[in-house]
Amino acid sequence: MTMPLQTPVSFVDVLIIGAGPAGLMCGNALAIAGGIEVRIIDQRPSKISVGHADGLQPRTIEVLQSYGLAERLLYEGNQMCMCAYYNPSQSGGIEFTTRVPDVSIPTARYPFKIALHQGAIEAAFLDSMAQHNLKVDRPVKPLAIELSRDREELRSLSSYPVKVTLAHLDAATDADKLEVVYAKYVIGADGAHSWVRKAFGITMDGDQTNYVWGVVDMVPDTNFPDIRNKSAIHSMNGSLMIIPRESEKVRLYVQLSEKDIVDPATGRVSKSKSSPESILEVARKTLHPFHISPLSDIEWWTIYMIGQRVASKFSVEDRVFIAGDACHTHSPKAGQGMNASMSDTHNLAWKITQVLRGWANPSILRTYESERRKYAQDLIDFDKRFAALFSKKPRASADQDGISHEEFFKAYQTAGGFTSGMDIRYGPSVIVNAKHQCCAENLVVGQRMLPQVFVRAADARPVEIHDLLPADTRFKILIFLGSMDEECRVVYINALADQLSSPTGFLRKYSTDGQASSSMFDLITIVAGRKENFNYLTVPLIFRPHWSKVLLDDTDVTGNKGGGGYKRFGISTESVTFVIIRPDGYIGMVALVDALEDVHEYFASFLLPCHRSLGL
Amino acid sequence: MTMPLQTPVSFVDVLIIGAGPAGLMCGNALAIAGGIEVRIIDQRPSKISVGHADGLQPRTIEVLQSYGLAERLLYEGNQMCMCAYYNPSQSGGIEFTTRVPDVSIPTARYPFKIALHQGAIEAAFLDSMAQHNLKVDRPVKPLAIELSRDREELRSLSSYPVKVTLAHLDAATDADKLEVVYAKYVIGADGAHSWVRKAFGITMDGDQTNYVWGVVDMVPDTNFPDIRNKSAIHSMNGSLMIIPRESEKVRLYVQLSEKDIVDPATGRVSKSKSSPESILEVARKTLHPFHISPLSDIEWWTIYMIGQRVASKFSVEDRVFIAGDACHTHSPKAGQGMNASMSDTHNLAWKITQVLRGWANPSILRTYESERRKYAQDLIDFDKRFAALFSKKPRASADQDGISHEEFFKAYQTAGGFTSGMDIRYGPSVIVNAKHQCCAENLVVGQRMLPQVFVRAADARPVEIHDLLPADTRFKILIFLGSMDEECRVVYINALADQLSSPTGFLRKYSTDGQASSSMFDLITIVAGRKENFNYLTVPLIFRPHWSKVLLDDTDVTGNKGGGGYKRFGISTESVTFVIIRPDGYIGMVALVDALEDVHEYFASFLLPCHRSLGL
Repeated sequence: MTMPLQTPVSFVDVLIIGAGPAGLMCGNALAIAGGIEVRIIDQRPSKISVGHADGLQPRTIEVLQSYGLAERLLYEGNQMCMCAYYNPSQSGGIEFTTRVPDVSIPTARYPFKIALHQGAIEAAFLDSMAQHNLKVDRPVKPLAIELSRDREELRSLSSYPVKVTLAHLDAATDADKLEVVYAKYVIGADGAHSWVRKAFGITMDGDQTNYVWGVVDMVPDTNFPDIRNKSAIHSMNGSLMIIPRESEKVRLYVQLSEKDIVDPATGRVSKSKSSPESILEVARKTLHPFHISPLSDIEWWTIYMIGQRVASKFSVEDRVFIAGDACHTHSPKAGQGMNASMSDTHNLAWKITQVLRGWANPSILRTYESERRKYAQDLIDFDKRFAALFSKKPRASADQDGISHEEFFKAYQTAGGFTSGMDIRYGPSVIVNAKHQCCAENLVVGQRMLPQVFVRAADARPVEIHDLLPADTRFKILIFLGSMDEECRVVYINALADQLSSPTGFLRKYSTDGQASSSMFDLITIVAGRKENFNYLTVPLIFRPHWSKVLLDDTDVTGNKGGGGYKRFGISTESVTFVIIRPDGYIGMVALVDALEDVHEYFASFLLPCHRSLGL
Repeated sequence: MTMPLQTPVSFVDVLIIGAGPAGLMCGNALAIAGGIEVRIIDQRPSKISVGHADGLQPRTIEVLQSYGLAERLLYEGNQMCMCAYYNPSQSGGIEFTTRVPDVSIPTARYPFKIALHQGAIEAAFLDSMAQHNLKVDRPVKPLAIELSRDREELRSLSSYPVKVTLAHLDAATDADKLEVVYAKYVIGADGAHSWVRKAFGITMDGDQTNYVWGVVDMVPDTNFPDIRNKSAIHSMNGSLMIIPRESEKVRLYVQLSEKDIVDPATGRVSKSKSSPESILEVARKTLHPFHISPLSDIEWWTIYMIGQRVASKFSVEDRVFIAGDACHTHSPKAGQGMNASMSDTHNLAWKITQVLRGWANPSILRTYESERRKYAQDLIDFDKRFAALFSKKPRASADQDGISHEEFFKAYQTAGGFTSGMDIRYGPSVIVNAKHQCCAENLVVGQRMLPQVFVRAADARPVEIHDLLPADTRFKILIFLGSMDEECRVVYINALADQLSSPTGFLRKYSTDGQASSSMFDLITIVAGRKENFNYLTVPLIFRPHWSKVLLDDTDVTGNKGGGGYKRFGISTESVTFVIIRPDGYIGMVALVDALEDVHEYFASFLLPCHRSLGL
């Protein structure tokens, strides 16, 4: 490519290509972290306003909450609590079979899913980013990308080894059109047809299915009793899923017949062969004897053929990463797409931040691929089973090969831990160390921290521990001090405080300012004590960076919230137990105080003791 | 007064004099109601920014929630959950006695008090009013007020019988200074020294005590273990109350010695005889052996002598009303002042709105005085007992006349229903009819509606019934349909629906548009059914104005919220029971469907069937 002489050149820490859910989660996380030069571009002139992805899983809501974004989406979105199942009736048509909670995982902080169009979710990110002075550059398209092959340059923390040429699509003149950006890191969050992925020749492994579905968003007029519940309908006419949404809307996922929709010449679905009316016509037959029709215009519709693929790698030299749909495509009906995409960059952003700050060894970046590609593969495996089950005919007297309600129901319920995001468990790595799992049996290392209400020792105010784990790039050190009722325990804990206050202890060794509680670590102390008589001032100062950081494992004043945390987590009140929560809310390690050396080693394996100070 | 020729003259429905808590509650309520010409003036050039009143009681939080204002204040304020008691120790100084929940009423939706400076609370109102295009005119001072003596004019709904002359204190020229406003109604919310009250010669009945207290707001450095709990301290040096507040601040109420502070010449407290340092010096002695000192400058301080007075009347011809401190003064330590003030105008605003719209007979305005003056008298009676107890010396071996901890503690706990605002019960009147109390024993007519979580029948989402009772000037008709499990009940309920759908039934007779659910009534139907199998479409249409208005008395999907409402309220699942909630959240009437005639009569006694349409 020939560049005009005056082509502007700039340098950024991170360039994000694509402002969909994956890109925005990344941009927002980096903007909130602070001190990072980040740019985010998108070739669309504006954000989408209707349709597209619309489901937030319980774990995703927890993640959004850690960025302060959940409240708005809880308010704007529709909360789906129940799932109804319908099956063929004796008299033809369908009939009600059962209704069960849509989220079957008892540890979910939010026991429901949110349905809300993707544009509203993007808007929440855009507003948050704007508060941190980050805006999407659009319409801007990448034209070329080059990654340095110089090992030295790739290793250096100060180099900018990725060169990206951008085109400003709305530039007034050709001279204004081009720009060159040198980046330390590039994130390709540019969708299923990812340009970044193709530029590096990363292949997608997997297959296309022959399941074809249509999607229609509308405000319905209907006598279907579960129109405000998520409904999974198996009929002799095909399957249907109903997702009740914000503002009286519902989304219908309608199973279509391949022959009607697929262009035989290309083997791909052809939108021109379909229409919202024809999709609705199928839905009407499936819903019989219930009627349904749109009360106003169809807001959005599409058709798709399910493909199930995972990128062969998620990173190039740990300098260029791909995320979201660029790495994985699958069916939308289990409501995973947008969730998986946001979780990708939620996983990545804090790692890049720590490396950019010079606090962590760049080797932690490898865990992005190891953690997220494993998850994506599990997701595709799940999707294969689920899409097949859902696209199958129901079992009936005439068709004993079909799927029975019991079979489908069981599969669906069993998958709840995975689809809700609760059961995601990252395997052992430099940042996941399960050696001492037994000291907190139910806080599974590699899984997300469990929600639990404690009360603050100083003022008995109940707090959800998740609210003390914001995605602020800090490791949270939860110190379960156990009981302090007996004098000998108090003496022991004071001695421990002295030991941990040593400048060579991990709390101060990796601290950015020599204090135990710092921009690297946040300390939260949890005592097995009672709000009626515990004196928070008896907790040694190193465990009490602020009065609000000392919690009691007790109920609130009504007796309705909190209590029983030690027991629930499987933590002894006779020991001192450390629970280390990664900046993304996942449990990195648990250990008894006797294994303090292992905690030292855990941090020593990826943190840099003499980090460069960036004035943070 | 001689008016310049060009003095501007205007007409308003309501003129509010004073933009403190009482005036702002009124202005905001009228602005939200819509369609009312309202003005609010204040002679202060800007709202206060520190100090003054700072306590929100649980019932007040509920009321603020009904205006959509609670969330912000819950976030900004400090939530006080526990109350600690300290008493003289054997070794001199004080010692910890006990800690108990600060709110002892189990029905409180918010089981705590909020401490937040008055300016922040006023800001919430100002922002809400601004969204409804109402701003405070300031600095503007009333100079003269005249109420017509013409009976005809006073009776007329279209007259403007109150003439008020205003002075714009910051007017550039004398010619711009004066203004005449003719109002249908005037609210004097102008504080303890109310100009409106004096203009109409309304007397204050009651006495001054000789209890003198000092107040200091600061960020403390202390080793007092309950500095973040509300603390009531009785010492041989005098009493002290600690109120932990927002932003690390605390407020100290310190008992002072009369002789040090009162000017013998006037008998009034003289601020010049005191200082924050001298108040703190007393506090330090009282707190011994604990130390306390300000970490930074004292933010605000004052001294006061407790007066306990109630205005002899709250209204003149039901055209001019006084509210808030203009009607009642008392000690601040039970945290009632601002709460009582806001509750006054919360009680008044919907009545004025309904009368202005021509929907209700002006006779309902009389209930403002009957309901709020009775409450104010109870408040003063309570305050006399409480202030005396708190100002008394503690009992000690040397002083057996003093107050024992048990005595004080019991009095304090017993008062919880009153101080929290939960036990406020308006007596029988045209809008409070307890004839059929027995059909819902625990929903006490004249008290506020109890909070309770139900689940929506259509989507199993849990909802707090309080959230369905916004202060939107509508009466809420809660229809407890009972069980619909048996066919005979369904037949019965359908017949009832036909009967209530009659144009002469109260639902349509007083409706503003002939519909049962309207700007006059909001219908909420509660069925004794289960989320797993209830079909909300079986509820007759008149009881189902929207799918979200049909609730079930069941738990949410987690089993942790809701359920047991019928039993808790004392309502039979074998009958149909009406619970009529006034626009201010108080229960106006309960009745079985057999007593439908009495419900008709209740509304007929104050609603006007052929109201003028104001296009609302």
